[in-house]
Amino acid sequence: MSVLFSFQIDAADDATHARAGRLATPHGEVLTPCFMPVATQAAVKGLTPDQLRAIGSQMVLCNTYHLALRPGAELVAQLGGLHRFMGWGGPILTDSGGFQIYSLAHRTKIDDHRVVFRSHVDGNLFELTPEDAVRIQEQLGADVAMCLDECLPHDTPRERLETAVRRTIAWAARCRDAHRLGSQALFGIVQGGTDPDLRVRCAEGLIRLDLPGYAVGGLSVGEQSESMYATLDVVAPCLPADRPRYLMGVGRPQDLLEAIARGIDLFDCVLPTRNGRNASAFTSAGSLRLRNQRFERDDRPLDPVCSCPVCRGYSRAYLRHLFQTNEMLGPILLSLHNLAYYHGLTRGAREAIERGCFDRYRRDRLAQLEA
Amino acid sequence: MSVLFSFQIDAADDATHARAGRLATPHGEVLTPCFMPVATQAAVKGLTPDQLRAIGSQMVLCNTYHLALRPGAELVAQLGGLHRFMGWGGPILTDSGGFQIYSLAHRTKIDDHRVVFRSHVDGNLFELTPEDAVRIQEQLGADVAMCLDECLPHDTPRERLETAVRRTIAWAARCRDAHRLGSQALFGIVQGGTDPDLRVRCAEGLIRLDLPGYAVGGLSVGEQSESMYATLDVVAPCLPADRPRYLMGVGRPQDLLEAIARGIDLFDCVLPTRNGRNASAFTSAGSLRLRNQRFERDDRPLDPVCSCPVCRGYSRAYLRHLFQTNEMLGPILLSLHNLAYYHGLTRGAREAIERGCFDRYRRDRLAQLEA
Repeated sequence: MSVLFSFQIDAADDATHARAGRLATPHGEVLTPCFMPVATQAAVKGLTPDQLRAIGSQMVLCNTYHLALRPGAELVAQLGGLHRFMGWGGPILTDSGGFQIYSLAHRTKIDDHRVVFRSHVDGNLFELTPEDAVRIQEQLGADVAMCLDECLPHDTPRERLETAVRRTIAWAARCRDAHRLGSQALFGIVQGGTDPDLRVRCAEGLIRLDLPGYAVGGLSVGEQSESMYATLDVVAPCLPADRPRYLMGVGRPQDLLEAIARGIDLFDCVLPTRNGRNASAFTSAGSLRLRNQRFERDDRPLDPVCSCPVCRGYSRAYLRHLFQTNEMLGPILLSLHNLAYYHGLTRGAREAIERGCFDRYRRDRLAQLEA
Repeated sequence: MSVLFSFQIDAADDATHARAGRLATPHGEVLTPCFMPVATQAAVKGLTPDQLRAIGSQMVLCNTYHLALRPGAELVAQLGGLHRFMGWGGPILTDSGGFQIYSLAHRTKIDDHRVVFRSHVDGNLFELTPEDAVRIQEQLGADVAMCLDECLPHDTPRERLETAVRRTIAWAARCRDAHRLGSQALFGIVQGGTDPDLRVRCAEGLIRLDLPGYAVGGLSVGEQSESMYATLDVVAPCLPADRPRYLMGVGRPQDLLEAIARGIDLFDCVLPTRNGRNASAFTSAGSLRLRNQRFERDDRPLDPVCSCPVCRGYSRAYLRHLFQTNEMLGPILLSLHNLAYYHGLTRGAREAIERGCFDRYRRDRLAQLEA
C-alpha cells in the first residue's frame, strides 16, 4: 500500500472473526466496519453531502459504469475529479463496472481480452478492457478503485465459473500493471460463485498480486443467504488479515451482521436508499411500511431509539402524509433515516468489537430483526 | 393586533413607497420585505426545514385547501399543529383555500353563504363557509391565517367582480367574528380584479374590520404585469401604513421589485421551486436552463455572485449532469438555489431601503434581469 493508504486493526473479536479497523485514505480515515452509501451517478439519490456527513457517512461508492456513460470519465477528470465534481470531500470508492455490465448492459460479449456491451442508456456499443477500467477509474480519481472482474449469476455451471475465475485473476494482474495513480488504491475482487474450491483458487490468485485490499464479489446475485454466509466462511480466512475486506453489494442488516462476524470490513448496497424511496423504513424493531394506514395518526418517530435528524424531527404520521401526497421529501427523509440506521448498525458493531462483545451484539440485533 | 403580534416600520424609502418592516409572531420575527417559500402540503418540495433555515427562509406558506383534504386539519391539530407536524419552528402563514378552490377544485358552486366544490384529489364534495375556513386554519395553527375570499379570473365582467368584492368583504367580517385563536393573526384579502374602483371599495370595506394585516389577492391570474402594477398603485396607498401588506402568489423577481416599490412587504410564489424542479435557475445575470448542452463542461457556479450552499458547492456541469441523469438532487439543489436567490433579492431590497437607495437597487436589479 502506498504511503497515502494504510489499514490497521484496532480490535479483533475473540468469539468471531469480526474486527474493528481503520482505513487511511488521501481523503480521510474510515473506521470499519463501514457501510458506504451508493452514489451511483455521483449523487446519493436525493441527499446532499452535508446531509450524509450529518448522519455519519464516512465513504461513498460511485458506479464507474454509469459515470463512464454519463457524463464520461474524461469530463469528470477535466472538472477536477469525482470529489470536486460531486462536492464530497471524504473518501470515495469506485467499482469496476463489472457488476453493472452483468446486470444492466445489453448483448454483452466477453472473451479473455475484453468485454463488449451495449449501453443501457442509448444502446451504443462499448468495449472495455481491464486497462480501460483502470484508466477510467484513474480519471474519476476515487480513493479506492476496483479491478475489472467477471460476475455471473448464482446458477452458472462450474465450467463457466472456472473461466470467470481464471479471467478475473488474469484481469486483476493486468489492472495492477496498468495502474499508475499513487493517490488511489486498487482492490481485487474474488469471484467463483458459491463453489468453495473456485473461491479459494480465485482468492489465492489475487493474493499473489499483493493488492492493498480484497473484495468478495458475485454474491447477493440470487443465491440463498446461507450460501452467501458459507462462501464468506471459506473466502474471508484466505484473505490477508492486514488488508481491508469488502463485500460488494450486500445487503440486508442481517447480512451485514453475519458478514462482519466473518471478518468483512466494508459494505455497500442500494437497499437503504431504494427502500427509503419506496416508503420502507429500517428500524430496531423491524421494517415499517410508511404507506400503511396504521401510521395515519402515529405521533412517534420512526424508531424511538434512533437519534438521526429524521427521528428527532418528524412523526410517522408526517412521513406517511408525505408519501400519501407524493412529496419528494418522503423518499428523502426515509433514505436519510435508513442510511443512519445502517451507519448505526456498523458503528454499534465496531463498538461491540472494541468492547469484546460483538457476538452478543450480533445475536441481539438479529433477534430484534426477527421480532 | 394581539400582544403576540406587532408590525413596525424600520425604514421607509423616500423615492418610492418601499418600506423595511419587522413582523413579530409567536414563532419569531420576520424582517420585511420577505419572500415565503411555498410548502403546499406541509413540505417545501424536496427541502428540509434545516436546508431552508440555512438559506435564510424566515416564514413559509402552507395551503389550507391541500392540507384540509390531506391529511385533514383535525389530524394536524391532533399532532400538535403545523409547526410540529412539519418540523418548522419559524412563522407559518396559511392561505384560506379561496385561490385553490378557484384554480384546482372542480364544479365549484358559490353563493353568499358558502362555496361548494369537488376535491381535485378524489372528487369528493366539500362545503366551505368563511367560518369553516377560520376553524380549519385555527386547527392548522399557523401564525397568520387568511380570510376566505372569492378569487376570479382576470377577464371577469365587472358585475361579477362586484359580487365577489361584496362577498369577500362580508366573508371577511364573518371570518373576523368567528376567529378565536389569540396566537394567530387573521389577514383580509383585497379582491376586485384590475378595476380600480372595486379594489378601493374592497380595501375600504376590509379596513373597517380593523384587521392586523391586508393582502392583495386575485393578481397574477393571467393579467399583464402593467395591470398588476397599476392595481398595486391604487390599492397599496389605501391600506393602513402600520399593517403588513402581502401580495399573494406573486411572482417573478421583477414583480417583487416593482411591488416592494409600491409598498408590499410579504410575498409567496411557487416559481422558484417549480422552476428549480424544471432545471431553470434564477441568477443575477438572468435565468439559466441547466439542461442546455452549453453547460456540459462549465465549471462555474450557477451564479458567481451568489453565496448559497449550491453555488459554494457545485458546478453548472454537475447540476446539468444531475438533470441529464434524472437524479432527484438536481431539482433539490436548484430549488434551494432559487429560493436563496429570492431571499437575496428581498434581503438586498431591505438593505437598500435602510440605506435610502432602494430606487437605484430596483433599477440595477431590473437592468440585470433584462440583460
